[in-house]
Amino acid sequence: MGADDKETRKTRVTPLRVPLVADGGYSPSLVSEPGRVLAADRWLARKFLAALGNPRLAIVFWSGEEVRTCADRPVARAVVRDRGALYRMLTNPVLHFGDLYSVKRIDIEGDLVQFLEATYRGFDNPGHLKLIKKLQDKVLNRPRANTLTDSRANIQHHYDLGNEFYELWLDTEAMQYTCAYFPNPSMTIEQAQVAKLDHVCRKLQLKPGDRVVEAGCGWGGLARHMARHYGVMVRAFNISHQQILYARAKAKAQGLADRVEYVEDDYRNISGEYDAFVSIGMLEHVGPSHYRALADVIQRALTPTGRGLIHTIGRNRPARMNAWIEKRIFPGGHPPTLGEMMPIFETHNFSVLDVENLRLHYAKTLEHWLARFDRNVGKIEEMYDHYFVRAWRLYLAGSIAAFNVGSLQLFQVVFARGTDNNLPWSREHLYK
Amino acid sequence: MGADDKETRKTRVTPLRVPLVADGGYSPSLVSEPGRVLAADRWLARKFLAALGNPRLAIVFWSGEEVRTCADRPVARAVVRDRGALYRMLTNPVLHFGDLYSVKRIDIEGDLVQFLEATYRGFDNPGHLKLIKKLQDKVLNRPRANTLTDSRANIQHHYDLGNEFYELWLDTEAMQYTCAYFPNPSMTIEQAQVAKLDHVCRKLQLKPGDRVVEAGCGWGGLARHMARHYGVMVRAFNISHQQILYARAKAKAQGLADRVEYVEDDYRNISGEYDAFVSIGMLEHVGPSHYRALADVIQRALTPTGRGLIHTIGRNRPARMNAWIEKRIFPGGHPPTLGEMMPIFETHNFSVLDVENLRLHYAKTLEHWLARFDRNVGKIEEMYDHYFVRAWRLYLAGSIAAFNVGSLQLFQVVFARGTDNNLPWSREHLYK
Repeated sequence: MGADDKETRKTRVTPLRVPLVADGGYSPSLVSEPGRVLAADRWLARKFLAALGNPRLAIVFWSGEEVRTCADRPVARAVVRDRGALYRMLTNPVLHFGDLYSVKRIDIEGDLVQFLEATYRGFDNPGHLKLIKKLQDKVLNRPRANTLTDSRANIQHHYDLGNEFYELWLDTEAMQYTCAYFPNPSMTIEQAQVAKLDHVCRKLQLKPGDRVVEAGCGWGGLARHMARHYGVMVRAFNISHQQILYARAKAKAQGLADRVEYVEDDYRNISGEYDAFVSIGMLEHVGPSHYRALADVIQRALTPTGRGLIHTIGRNRPARMNAWIEKRIFPGGHPPTLGEMMPIFETHNFSVLDVENLRLHYAKTLEHWLARFDRNVGKIEEMYDHYFVRAWRLYLAGSIAAFNVGSLQLFQVVFARGTDNNLPWSREHLYK
Repeated sequence: MGADDKETRKTRVTPLRVPLVADGGYSPSLVSEPGRVLAADRWLARKFLAALGNPRLAIVFWSGEEVRTCADRPVARAVVRDRGALYRMLTNPVLHFGDLYSVKRIDIEGDLVQFLEATYRGFDNPGHLKLIKKLQDKVLNRPRANTLTDSRANIQHHYDLGNEFYELWLDTEAMQYTCAYFPNPSMTIEQAQVAKLDHVCRKLQLKPGDRVVEAGCGWGGLARHMARHYGVMVRAFNISHQQILYARAKAKAQGLADRVEYVEDDYRNISGEYDAFVSIGMLEHVGPSHYRALADVIQRALTPTGRGLIHTIGRNRPARMNAWIEKRIFPGGHPPTLGEMMPIFETHNFSVLDVENLRLHYAKTLEHWLARFDRNVGKIEEMYDHYFVRAWRLYLAGSIAAFNVGSLQLFQVVFARGTDNNLPWSREHLYK
């Protein structure tokens, strides 16, 4: 592969890479002179650990000196390379830690996931870090808007990184970049993603000939699975150009082009009438201020006996997205609570039939992804660079931690019109 | 049985009977002189049917003259005995119809459930009866408060009618006055109520030795079932004196008195720590302004790995209780939407694991109850009176209609603490 190709690929990731160096002073070249460790440095580090609830963590200064507030052996150590990094991390840990870790001004000795779980548990405890959290939520980190134009930019930021990149660590079966379903936790990621697709199709009670619309279809794996195994016709919407090209090519190669149509457009522009509405992993990108618009889309699109399913990352309590992930990885994202989601259904008399929480399934999915990512780290570093690899490892490990400690949830919500009485008498059919 | 006993039993129902005659002018002795049917009467009746969306109903005047706005054969006819009844019904149909029907100033020819379904569909359609609904919701019918004192009065109004009365038409197995579970719709009501109890116990993942607290235990059937079949210890709270006496006697007779304790007290006074919190059919009586108090009770009561389940009548869209049922049958009631319920869980980081909507199961449960009620109508009329029988038939038939057309829902919500990772990998265990 020539240098030009490589250059092209590299330009796609600039939103992630350039700000790390140019914006906010995270560049490794900006490392402050370490100097000797001051009493103030130690005092701040202790305060920080205490605010996190004295977890089994240690902070190691540039001199090698270690501070900890828990008597038990640490599960991990944060090694801070210079005083600037220390102060940044303490003033806004969620946002700055990510960037400082990415450029290696902070490093983690020990298990990254366990380090993040311990800190997230601290953040989740309402007694801890009140002032810092308040500042973060209210002032420092406002999520980006999701107008039609911004949505496109926000989605391209993430999903147009390049299909080759995602192929290196997602499942090879259906290219699912959403939570898999592990009814048996020893399944492979391929088996669990197919199990997820079937779980969704069963919940939608698809029958041959049904017309299905999908809002936010990723690389199109669900649409192809539904068409092939359930005999339905699918129109699948997505605003990521890279994903649409990939999805169309796959459908053509699999002889499904006459049954699956991939539309490069926003969910708000969905037209037509359908027997099923499905959206897997899009709601996180929609933002609560647009839920009413989504409700109107579903109201227009679904037949009187149509079924709907929304699969989304969510929360137990309303909160902003992790600031660093919002800034570097997923601009415009907001994982809603069920309470925040309900206007989608309650506006137009839709009846919620079934909600399932698959939180630990997402932690397991991410563990598979991270293991595969790690096996391909050399290739990925060659495609992008070292900072990119560290940022993405942190994002995957941080997501595992967030699902494991319960900062994030995964909801599947099944719904139908309130006037539809053609309902199954139990959910047993999902488990046959 | 002596005349005195009968008198005692009759006084228990005064909240329902006396106002029918003394309050609001519903007494059959207040029937206005029918006179001839005026053009205005016909015009009003047509307007009313049109506002309901021209259902397959007819209004029959005192003269025998019939008005309808749908060409198809009517499924039922409302026979109006006098002009006063007609005008009352038209100005506030939900509230006045119930009382006028109870005293037979309005009667229904044809199927009562189908008549009510047709009218409820009309009420549910946002385009219909806007002004009337607005008046009803905002001005005419404000639900009663549920302070600790009022709750007791509201609950006694309904549940202290007498255990003998409920024994005549509820299931004989567990005396369940809540939605049964019909995984097979041809089950008997006894089978379906036991299936409901087991479905709830499985969702709670009870194991021998668990301590369970029940908020609002009715006649105590679930508590006894859990103690007998799942080996748990139960403390069950209820503020209905009649129900507590019944429940204690049953537990003693069944040799369960050492494992089930019935406490005559409000759910807000629950103390102690439990492995499971369960509440079946209480939330309807709680009222949204008290959900925060309920959240605090659960937060105090549940262990770090405890499970919770709330089973409640609900709605797809926020609305007041049916005004007549609120006034005559269930004072203080409010069936919440899932959105309205979520503060119960989101206040203290509880994680909603599973929501199941059993709407049509409640319609079927009520059909069983109504059939049994009708078989015992002679006895019930002798215990109370004719007005009482008509009011209760209307309430049961109206509830069937409301669940059938989707005005009411039945939600079972399973929850655990957000930090608890001891979760099953699928819900398959519910269906084994």
